Amino acid sequence: MIKEAIFHRPKNSYAYAYDANTLHIRLRAKKDDLTSVELIHGDPYRWAEGHMLSDKVPMSKVTSDELFDYWFIAISPENNRFVYQFEVTDGNETWVLGEMGFTEDLEDNRFFRFPYLNEIDVFDAPAWVKDTVWYQIFPERFANGNPGRKTNTNGVWGDTPKPDSFFGGDFEGIIQHLDYLAELGISGIYMTPIFEAPTNHKYDTIDYMKIDPQFGDKETFRKLVQECHARGIRVMLDAVFNHSGYGFAPFQDVLKHGAKSRYADWFHMLSFGEEEGDHPTYESFAFTDNMPKLKTSNPEVKEYLLGVAKYWIEEFDIDGWRLDVANEVDHKFWREFRNTVRAVKDDVYMVAEIWNDAMPWLQGDQFDSVMNYPFTEAVIDFIAKGKIGASRFGNLLTSHLQLYPENVNEVLFNLLGSHDTARVLTQCGDDTAKLKLAFLLLFTYPGSPCIYYGDELGLKGDGDDFAYYRACMEWDPAKQDQDLLSFVKQLIAIRKSHSAITANCHLQVLKADDASGLFVFSRSQGDEEIVVALNNGEEPSAFSLPSKWHGQNAVDLWSGEKVAVGAETASYALEPMQFRIFAINK
Amino acid sequence: MIKEAIFHRPKNSYAYAYDANTLHIRLRAKKDDLTSVELIHGDPYRWAEGHMLSDKVPMSKVTSDELFDYWFIAISPENNRFVYQFEVTDGNETWVLGEMGFTEDLEDNRFFRFPYLNEIDVFDAPAWVKDTVWYQIFPERFANGNPGRKTNTNGVWGDTPKPDSFFGGDFEGIIQHLDYLAELGISGIYMTPIFEAPTNHKYDTIDYMKIDPQFGDKETFRKLVQECHARGIRVMLDAVFNHSGYGFAPFQDVLKHGAKSRYADWFHMLSFGEEEGDHPTYESFAFTDNMPKLKTSNPEVKEYLLGVAKYWIEEFDIDGWRLDVANEVDHKFWREFRNTVRAVKDDVYMVAEIWNDAMPWLQGDQFDSVMNYPFTEAVIDFIAKGKIGASRFGNLLTSHLQLYPENVNEVLFNLLGSHDTARVLTQCGDDTAKLKLAFLLLFTYPGSPCIYYGDELGLKGDGDDFAYYRACMEWDPAKQDQDLLSFVKQLIAIRKSHSAITANCHLQVLKADDASGLFVFSRSQGDEEIVVALNNGEEPSAFSLPSKWHGQNAVDLWSGEKVAVGAETASYALEPMQFRIFAINK
Repeated sequence: MIKEAIFHRPKNSYAYAYDANTLHIRLRAKKDDLTSVELIHGDPYRWAEGHMLSDKVPMSKVTSDELFDYWFIAISPENNRFVYQFEVTDGNETWVLGEMGFTEDLEDNRFFRFPYLNEIDVFDAPAWVKDTVWYQIFPERFANGNPGRKTNTNGVWGDTPKPDSFFGGDFEGIIQHLDYLAELGISGIYMTPIFEAPTNHKYDTIDYMKIDPQFGDKETFRKLVQECHARGIRVMLDAVFNHSGYGFAPFQDVLKHGAKSRYADWFHMLSFGEEEGDHPTYESFAFTDNMPKLKTSNPEVKEYLLGVAKYWIEEFDIDGWRLDVANEVDHKFWREFRNTVRAVKDDVYMVAEIWNDAMPWLQGDQFDSVMNYPFTEAVIDFIAKGKIGASRFGNLLTSHLQLYPENVNEVLFNLLGSHDTARVLTQCGDDTAKLKLAFLLLFTYPGSPCIYYGDELGLKGDGDDFAYYRACMEWDPAKQDQDLLSFVKQLIAIRKSHSAITANCHLQVLKADDASGLFVFSRSQGDEEIVVALNNGEEPSAFSLPSKWHGQNAVDLWSGEKVAVGAETASYALEPMQFRIFAINK
Repeated sequence: MIKEAIFHRPKNSYAYAYDANTLHIRLRAKKDDLTSVELIHGDPYRWAEGHMLSDKVPMSKVTSDELFDYWFIAISPENNRFVYQFEVTDGNETWVLGEMGFTEDLEDNRFFRFPYLNEIDVFDAPAWVKDTVWYQIFPERFANGNPGRKTNTNGVWGDTPKPDSFFGGDFEGIIQHLDYLAELGISGIYMTPIFEAPTNHKYDTIDYMKIDPQFGDKETFRKLVQECHARGIRVMLDAVFNHSGYGFAPFQDVLKHGAKSRYADWFHMLSFGEEEGDHPTYESFAFTDNMPKLKTSNPEVKEYLLGVAKYWIEEFDIDGWRLDVANEVDHKFWREFRNTVRAVKDDVYMVAEIWNDAMPWLQGDQFDSVMNYPFTEAVIDFIAKGKIGASRFGNLLTSHLQLYPENVNEVLFNLLGSHDTARVLTQCGDDTAKLKLAFLLLFTYPGSPCIYYGDELGLKGDGDDFAYYRACMEWDPAKQDQDLLSFVKQLIAIRKSHSAITANCHLQVLKADDASGLFVFSRSQGDEEIVVALNNGEEPSAFSLPSKWHGQNAVDLWSGEKVAVGAETASYALEPMQFRIFAINK
C-alpha cells in the first residue's frame, strides 16, 4: 500500500454538504492500490461503555484518472453531526486512517470530523442554472438594430474588426434577434459589459450606473430584459469590479487632486506624482494603464460597488452577474457581494472569471460558479488541435470533476470559447466536423453550457489581437452555416429533454483509446442512462456498449431510431469525426 | 518518484499569505523521495515573445514526519500576483508539476495561481497574542473573595467536588489573587462562562447580558478587568453561542407557547409537542437536554448574539472571546462575528473550541486560533502516559505544525488540560517530574500557552465526572507544591525573555529516539538559537548539539551558566526525567 498517496482532508472537495441532509465523503488513493475502503462513522456524542458507537459502511471506487482512484460515499448523518475514519485495504495490509494518519486501531487515532451540517453553509446555486443553455453576447458585435442612432461607428458591419472598430451593435439589435435565440434553444444570455466605457469591449467602465449610449439607454435595457423574460430567457451582466476605466470620475479626481482627492484611497496608488514632472503611478489590471485597480477593501468603494450590484437587479430584474477578474479581488468583498445580491433576489447566479482551480471561491460563501476554461482547454487540445489523446482527455476531465464538490460541478459555466479566446472553429482549423464534436461534448457535459455568439453558425477569428475574436455576427442566412446551426439546435434539444445530462455531474469514461481516438462516456440519472461515443481519430472504428445494456432496447437520440442492443460482441461502427448518442431506460 | 504522494493545492495551508508582502508555498512529498524542488514562478501578465516570463528558485526541505518531507519557500511577489509550477527531481526523473498534474514541459501544464495578495484577506491575529501567557480560571473554583455574600454554597472550600457542588468562587477572589498571577508571569486570563446560569460551570446560560450573581455584578466585573489591565493582564471571556441554557427566557417562551412563541424559530425544534401528552423535542448540544441548540442562522438570533459579543467589549473592554463548541455553529455566523467584534476593538483575540483539524475556520475570515488539543494529547500520550515513543511524538508535532499556515501556528492556544480534561498531574500518575517535562514542552512550544488554574502548584483530579477536574484552587502555601510553582515561574520567565521561542513557529526536531526516550528540538529567531533536550526514558542518556554549535559559547538557560560547546563528540548527560535548555547567539 502506498500510504503516502492516500489523501483526505475535511471540507473543500473531500468532505462537504451536498444538500441540507447529505454529506459527500471522498478519498483519493494511488490508482489500483486499494481493494476496499470502509467508512467507520458515528455521532461524536453517542457513547457506550467508554467507546464511541460507530458503524462501518463500504465506499465505492467511482472513478479513476491517470494517477489516482477516487472513493466515494453519500451519507446522511442522523443528528447532523458526523465523525469518521477510513479502513483501507489493499488485500495485504489493512490500516485505519484518521486525523493522526495511519494506525492499526481506530482508538489510537482521532476521527475526522464534519462537526455539524448547517444548512445555511450549504453551497446553494440557483436551481434553474442546471437547465439553462447560455449564449454569450458581445453587444458591440451582435446586431445593429438602429444604425441611424449611432455617431461613432467607423466600419461596415462584417468588416474585419480592428482593435478600435465600432460597428454599432446595440440592445435593439439583440431584441430583434431574441426569437432566433429562443428558437435555437437558448434560455440565458450573458452580455459582456454594457456600462458606459470608451472601448468597444467596455471593460474600462466610466460610469457603472449608466448604459453605454452606443447600446441604448435604461429604457431599451429594461425592454431587453422584459423581452428576454417573456421568452424564458434569463439575463446575466458582466461586473467589472477589479478595476475601473481611466475615465471613471473618481480616478480622474485622483489624477487631478492627487493625495488631496477625496477618492485618493479608492485605488492602489503607488505614488501621486506630486513632484514636478512626476506622473502618478498606480496598480492596474495586467499592467494596462487604462484599467486602474479598485481598492475593494475600502468600505466606501465596497459600498459603491455593492450599490451597483444591487441597483441593476432591483431596477431591471437581471438574473445573474458574471464577475470579471474575480480572483484578484479580495474574498471579503465577494462574501459581502453574495450576501448583498442574494438579499435582493434569492436566485441570482454568480459566475466568476477564474481560469484556475477555484475551490477557495466555491465554498458556498462567494460564487456559484466559474467560467470552466479547464474544460475549454481540454476540448480544444483533444478535438480542435489533436494535441492530446483520448486517454489524457478523459483523465483531465475526470481529475477536474474530482476537484470540486458535485453541487459545484452541476452548475459550472462551460464554454468552448469567449471574447477572451480564439474562436473555436478557427482553433479547429476551420474543420466543422471537429467543431461538431466539440459542441457534442459541450452539450452532453455536466454543468451549464454557453455558446459564444456566432460559434453556432460558423464565425471565425484568430490573430494577435482580441479584436479578431470579436467579429460581427453573421445575419445573412446565405452566409450562415445552416447545417451547423441545425446540428447545434438538435443537440440543445437533446440536452434539454434528458435529465441524465443535466441533473447531476456523474460522468463515467467507458473508453478513451489513444490509438483509435475513440472516446466513449456515459451519463445517468435515475432509470435513464446515456452513452455518448465519438471517433476523434483518422480511421473507422467501432465501440460496444456496457454489458448491462445487452439484450435491452436503446434509442439512438440523433436519429430517433430504436436500437436493439445485442450480444456481448455487438459493436457500432464509427467513421472518423462521427459520433452516436444512445439512451436507455432501465 | 512516487508522484502520487506529492501534494499541493493553493490556499489553505499550502499557499497562503503570511503577511501583506509575503507568500508561503509548501509542497508535500513522500519522505526521502525528492532530492530537489524548484519553484518556477512569474507574474501572469508579464510576457515576452509568446511566453510568460518566469524565474526559478530552489525550495528547502524544512521538515519531515513519519511519511512525508515538507518543502517550503517564502517569497514576495513584485506586483502581488503570483503563478507557479514546481520542478521536482528525485535524482533519476524530473517532472514539472502544475495544475494539470505532472508534465515534461511547463508549457503543457497550467500554472498554480495565487491571483493577488490582498492585504485585507491576510490572517491577522492580534500581535500581542504570541507574547501572552494565559491562565484559565473556572470562576466557581478559583477563590472565594466574599464568603458572606453567597447563599447557594453547599460545601467547604477544598472538599472533593460533586457535580452539583458550589464553593463560592467569585470575581472578588480573582481580584485578590491577581498579584499571584502577575508574579507567576501571567499576561492573560481566560475565564469559563460568567453569565447567569444555574450550573457551577455555567455553560447553560440563562441571561447573556447579566453577570451570574454568585460571581458578582457588572461593577465587580468592571473592576476585575481594570485590575487585570493595570497589571498588563488581558481578559478573555467564554461565549457559549452554540446553545443556550434551558432557563434562557426565549427557550422558556417556546416551551410555554409552542409554535406560537415569537421565539419559535430561535431553536432547532423537532416538534413543539402540541398534542396532548407530547413533550417538545429539539436539538441540543451532545444530547444534553438543558442545552438547546440556538438557531444561529436566524437573523434575529444572530443579531442578539452579536449584540452580546459587542456589549462586553464595548462596555467592559475585554480582550478576547473563547468560542464554545464553535465548530457546530455555522461559518456564516462566525464571519459576521469576526467583522462585528473587530469593528468594535481591532485587536480582540478569537479562540475557538475545535478539537480537530480547524483549517476551514482559520483562513482569516473567522477565528484567530483554536484550543490546541492535538498538542495536549500528544504531550499526554508521550510524557504523562508513555503511550507513544519519542519518534511518534515528534512526528505528531511536525505533522500538526504543517497542518496550518505559520501565522496560525504562532498564535495557537496551547494547553496541557482544561475544564474538559482530566488534570495533567493526575494523568502523569501524580509524578511531578513528568508534569515538569510537560510544562517544559508547553512553554518552549510555538503558540500562546495556557495554564489551567492550579496545575502550576499540583492540583489533581480525575474520575467519571467533570466535577473532579474542577477542584478548588489551593491557597494554603503549605499545601501548594512550591517547588513546582517556582519551576513554572522560571519557565515562563525564560519563555518571555527569548523571542526564539515566541516570535515564530519554527521547530526542528533534532533527535527523537524511542529506545532512550530522548527528545531534542531547536527553536530559532534571527541570531538566537535554543535547544531543548529532555529524557523521557528510564535510563540515563546523553545528547549532543548540532555541529554548527561546536566551538561556540552557549548559555544553560536553567542554571544561567556558560557552556563551552566542545568538539564533535561533546555530549551532555541527561538523567531520566531531566532536561536542559541551551541558548546560543550566533
